Amino acid sequence: MTLTDLAPDTRTVDPALEALLAASVTASRALSTLTTERKDAALTAIADALDGAADRVLPANERDLQRGREQGISKGLMDRLRLDADRLAGLAAAVRDVRGLPDPVGVVVRGSRLPNGLQLSQVRVPFGVVGAIYEARPNVTVDIAALALKSGNAVVLRGGSAAEHTNRELVGLLQGALQSVGLPAEAVQTIDEFGRAGAQQLMRARGFVDVLIPRGSADLIQTVVRESTVPVIETGAGVVHVFLDATADAQTAVDIVHNAKVQRPSVCNAVETVVVHRDAAARLLPPLIESLRASGVVLRGDDRARAIEASLEAATEEDFATEHMALELSIAVVDDLDAALEHIRRFSTRHTESIVTADMANAERFLAEVDSAVVMVNASTRFSDGGEFGFGAEVGISTQKLHARGPMGLPELTSTKWIVRGAGQVRG
Amino acid sequence: MTLTDLAPDTRTVDPALEALLAASVTASRALSTLTTERKDAALTAIADALDGAADRVLPANERDLQRGREQGISKGLMDRLRLDADRLAGLAAAVRDVRGLPDPVGVVVRGSRLPNGLQLSQVRVPFGVVGAIYEARPNVTVDIAALALKSGNAVVLRGGSAAEHTNRELVGLLQGALQSVGLPAEAVQTIDEFGRAGAQQLMRARGFVDVLIPRGSADLIQTVVRESTVPVIETGAGVVHVFLDATADAQTAVDIVHNAKVQRPSVCNAVETVVVHRDAAARLLPPLIESLRASGVVLRGDDRARAIEASLEAATEEDFATEHMALELSIAVVDDLDAALEHIRRFSTRHTESIVTADMANAERFLAEVDSAVVMVNASTRFSDGGEFGFGAEVGISTQKLHARGPMGLPELTSTKWIVRGAGQVRG
Repeated sequence: MTLTDLAPDTRTVDPALEALLAASVTASRALSTLTTERKDAALTAIADALDGAADRVLPANERDLQRGREQGISKGLMDRLRLDADRLAGLAAAVRDVRGLPDPVGVVVRGSRLPNGLQLSQVRVPFGVVGAIYEARPNVTVDIAALALKSGNAVVLRGGSAAEHTNRELVGLLQGALQSVGLPAEAVQTIDEFGRAGAQQLMRARGFVDVLIPRGSADLIQTVVRESTVPVIETGAGVVHVFLDATADAQTAVDIVHNAKVQRPSVCNAVETVVVHRDAAARLLPPLIESLRASGVVLRGDDRARAIEASLEAATEEDFATEHMALELSIAVVDDLDAALEHIRRFSTRHTESIVTADMANAERFLAEVDSAVVMVNASTRFSDGGEFGFGAEVGISTQKLHARGPMGLPELTSTKWIVRGAGQVRG
Repeated sequence: MTLTDLAPDTRTVDPALEALLAASVTASRALSTLTTERKDAALTAIADALDGAADRVLPANERDLQRGREQGISKGLMDRLRLDADRLAGLAAAVRDVRGLPDPVGVVVRGSRLPNGLQLSQVRVPFGVVGAIYEARPNVTVDIAALALKSGNAVVLRGGSAAEHTNRELVGLLQGALQSVGLPAEAVQTIDEFGRAGAQQLMRARGFVDVLIPRGSADLIQTVVRESTVPVIETGAGVVHVFLDATADAQTAVDIVHNAKVQRPSVCNAVETVVVHRDAAARLLPPLIESLRASGVVLRGDDRARAIEASLEAATEEDFATEHMALELSIAVVDDLDAALEHIRRFSTRHTESIVTADMANAERFLAEVDSAVVMVNASTRFSDGGEFGFGAEVGISTQKLHARGPMGLPELTSTKWIVRGAGQVRG
């Protein structure tokens, strides 16, 4: 089997890339049966290497930053690209956190003895080779490698040209640490040197790569979804809503929306739109707006919201459809729960939505009818997070329905296998 | 959102198809919150309608058969296409079987109370809209519709032109039954009238269709995998292996291989290749070959097998890579377990493999190292089946690692959703 067989529409397949992917498959076999102790030893070696890596990694990072400055990339992107001693220490700490998580491999999901005596069990096994496509965030290089390793997977990384030098050093460091404990360096590989063509081929390397996880902008994710024949876990954008029902307690409503917007506005579980029941709008909007403005939130509203609060800027359709990831919030006033559900259906990216209400029936309808990965009653949307859910690691938040939905932990980086133990049984 | 937004490379999007898919989405919302009783009532209505459907369905089926005869389609295909009174009764019985299965929707998969008092639960929810692409098998029309309905999903069917008239009548019958119990007819729709272009658009209808299940030939499945941006569950071919280890008991080996090949050769869990340890070949091959030949199995072997049994035809690489689905079997002789694992790695489609052995260590290595959906010790591969596993329904057997692997039951036709119940909690 070759990549050409698998991807007839990929005109040129780089033989060096194919050899690299084949080496990942071979490495994945070695990883798949490792004991937890050996994987943890590798994670310790990686964390220790990161502790002593400043001399090696920071100059490479400075080269990437320099090129970024020359190319005039955005301030936000520059910040995500930057490593320093503190951030390296943070990476090492994150690897030690992953080491401390329960090993998902080998967990028996379910099992039974069949009437004919066959013993059936479904056990967690690694995927094999996990591909990651991401942008300009060197921390993802280390995070994904550590998570993949702990779950017994080899990983192929495509980190984007902006962080090319940094990632090359980090991958070298990871490979050295793996070899130092007797594991194959090919368990962690980068394909950055193959450029865009390499990324294209990675997306079509079915049979070599078992699952592809894109992390980054909506554009990046949509491209991977569209181009890939390898199964993808979509970790999508969050146009997140809080609905303030007619019976919402004012203090609770203000606290939840403020927290959901202000506590960390740049993340996908931050609220983007507040939908308010018309019967509660005059009661809730003034204190809510006061509280949000005190924290510097730019507020926009539809006509009905502006009829109550004339100082609001006008919200466009585009505003309601945008994940701002900033101190900006749109407000819509609706007639009832049905209209709120309709607004959410129309604009939500199906990440997380919350209702603030004292009405039991409305709470249950909201939970049942909102088709999002996480639905909440009387809680801040910022809780939609693997760490908060107790998973102990941030693999991402899936906005698709296949395999994983919502915050993903280590078990979501595994597949399963059915094991059947018999004593000569045949089918009648 | 329109199909054009979703699939920029689909040049022409049929507005009628888009309206049809949008109606499926609307219907899926109604289905998603139905009680089990109401879904079961719909399944009863469908089964009853099938009981009285001979006058309506069989003439349509005869038209398809007539066209098939004119076009000279294969005998196997004609047989799969044919309906008669008995088969219609079988379809009705299958629908009643599905009705009797536990409803997967609403099952709490896991849950906990977080330290801050939030109550977290992960519950099974329908996917929404399930797409099915299949070939010339009218029974799939009814099977998939029943399974989708029981799991709360709307379904969009693309059944292939060979069964066009039959499927149109069956879908009409299903829709009538749904309406008779107050459910939307659009819960079951066919896009056959849109031809190949319709199938293409279905594969790219991300946002309308939540998961696509291809059923049929390897060609069909590979096309869907390659063309789809909608997540696919690949139900693949089975190049299934049985490895006879050095310590295999002769009678057990013969019984298992005979059962795995002969009991029903046309299905994906039937064995295609027997791999034999060289130390056992002279002992096991003669009785095995005698037993298989007595049942009319055509046998081929590699050079080492033919050195023991000169009467074997020569097996080519192609033979070892082929799912024959017929009374044909290839035999390879290998040096040891490692060589057996290597042969399986090379040729297996990762569906099901079994080892016959008395050696505990080899059994465990085989179970751990064979990377297939189902791995067995001392059991016939014919047990790799949802019905045998106790799932009560045949959704298909997944050969991919994402979402579902191996025999799929009704729960595999669902996703999950996280529900968070709070009392005003905000994140610190």
